[in-house]
Amino acid sequence: MRILITAGGTSEPIDNVRAITNHSTGRLGQTIANLMLETGWQVDYITTKQALLPENSPSLTKHFIASTQDLLATITELLTKHRYDAVIHSMAVSDFTGETAFSEEKLIENFLQLKPELTKEGLHEFFQQLAQQKNTETKISSDTDRLILTLKKTPKVIQQIKKLQPDTMLFGFKLLVDVSKEELLTVAQAALEKNQADFVLANDLTEISGDQHHGYLLAKDGSLEEATTKSEIATLILDKIMQQEDAQ
Amino acid sequence: MRILITAGGTSEPIDNVRAITNHSTGRLGQTIANLMLETGWQVDYITTKQALLPENSPSLTKHFIASTQDLLATITELLTKHRYDAVIHSMAVSDFTGETAFSEEKLIENFLQLKPELTKEGLHEFFQQLAQQKNTETKISSDTDRLILTLKKTPKVIQQIKKLQPDTMLFGFKLLVDVSKEELLTVAQAALEKNQADFVLANDLTEISGDQHHGYLLAKDGSLEEATTKSEIATLILDKIMQQEDAQ
Repeated sequence: MRILITAGGTSEPIDNVRAITNHSTGRLGQTIANLMLETGWQVDYITTKQALLPENSPSLTKHFIASTQDLLATITELLTKHRYDAVIHSMAVSDFTGETAFSEEKLIENFLQLKPELTKEGLHEFFQQLAQQKNTETKISSDTDRLILTLKKTPKVIQQIKKLQPDTMLFGFKLLVDVSKEELLTVAQAALEKNQADFVLANDLTEISGDQHHGYLLAKDGSLEEATTKSEIATLILDKIMQQEDAQ
Repeated sequence: MRILITAGGTSEPIDNVRAITNHSTGRLGQTIANLMLETGWQVDYITTKQALLPENSPSLTKHFIASTQDLLATITELLTKHRYDAVIHSMAVSDFTGETAFSEEKLIENFLQLKPELTKEGLHEFFQQLAQQKNTETKISSDTDRLILTLKKTPKVIQQIKKLQPDTMLFGFKLLVDVSKEELLTVAQAALEKNQADFVLANDLTEISGDQHHGYLLAKDGSLEEATTKSEIATLILDKIMQQEDAQ
């Protein structure tokens, strides 16, 4: 078996010294990878310099990335080169990346110069124009009381996986914060469909603490299983891959 | 000798899962701490979970922080409790912290509702009002093409150090990106005066790579010394503390 696992959180540069990061220790990915390596499977592991790593093993190949753009490049390369029995995409990928950064004064100055039409469309056009201005500062000056950043959407990495490898088993992850079970599962179901995932592990940040990790594994066929620790989640995922293999 | 060292980079929350971080491996702070510990000095070390750590030693006490607000609380507590021969403040402290976050649509909606006067003052007033709106989202929705964040100034932690302990030797750090020696030293001199530092280590990100680390140690008396590696910087700082001790 050859498995591709992504873990940790991406980091999107704002300037040379600052970035927007997604908190993620990578501990869940680490637990999953350790279990697969113990089982004797080969693991390609895409992660960040900040995240926890699986135990060293000749069956483990690590690939380090920082931004969502890096992740997209690495995942595309690996999915083009190798055939994976499953892809476990647990990385917390930034939805947004830095676009422009202005001091409040500079933004207001731009606004008064460009004189946007005061309609929804006119103001949208203003932000579009603003986004096209190259910010030439390599480190944003701290000589202002308020900084205004605009962020733009990152490419949806998960949606590339089945496009590149339609036969792999895809495990997506959906993390929400302090929502009901119903809302969590509704959002997870939508993500499953949109991303052509076979499974989505739905979890809530308020129910994660150390190895305690409450999660629901939602399948494409509508079935639902529950786990309460990172080890149980890893075992659930391993079982699904084995069942699939047995069925073939 | 008892020394307080800060190292690593702060991380400012935007919402429950995202933060703005200052890149910093903490390697310079680690090198400085290791040298002081080898010399037999006692070191209080304020750092982050992401940063590299000095070698374990019974003379080392670690204090972990995340945000600038945490750092201020911890440094205030330590400077109130203990007397330090020197404070080496190498931590990359965020100048800004999250204030508000809006989708472009929501920001435009607010703008059209609040109808600000189209003058510098009127637009500033608009951002002030916006900042006061509590963002109730615990995780910012990704259902927009553009996200707009406003960031506000953090408190100047370094300026508290001499207020709390006027007799300590304060080493500040100034990191710029790709500037001339003249500009670097002018900015470092201004920082030295503003922060009542005894020394400022001035360095340029483009001249740092692994242990190679070009820096100037600028003193209050105008003298200037140069180093090209992290170890040399650590030695320079150690020497200054020893000279001061000998002079007393």
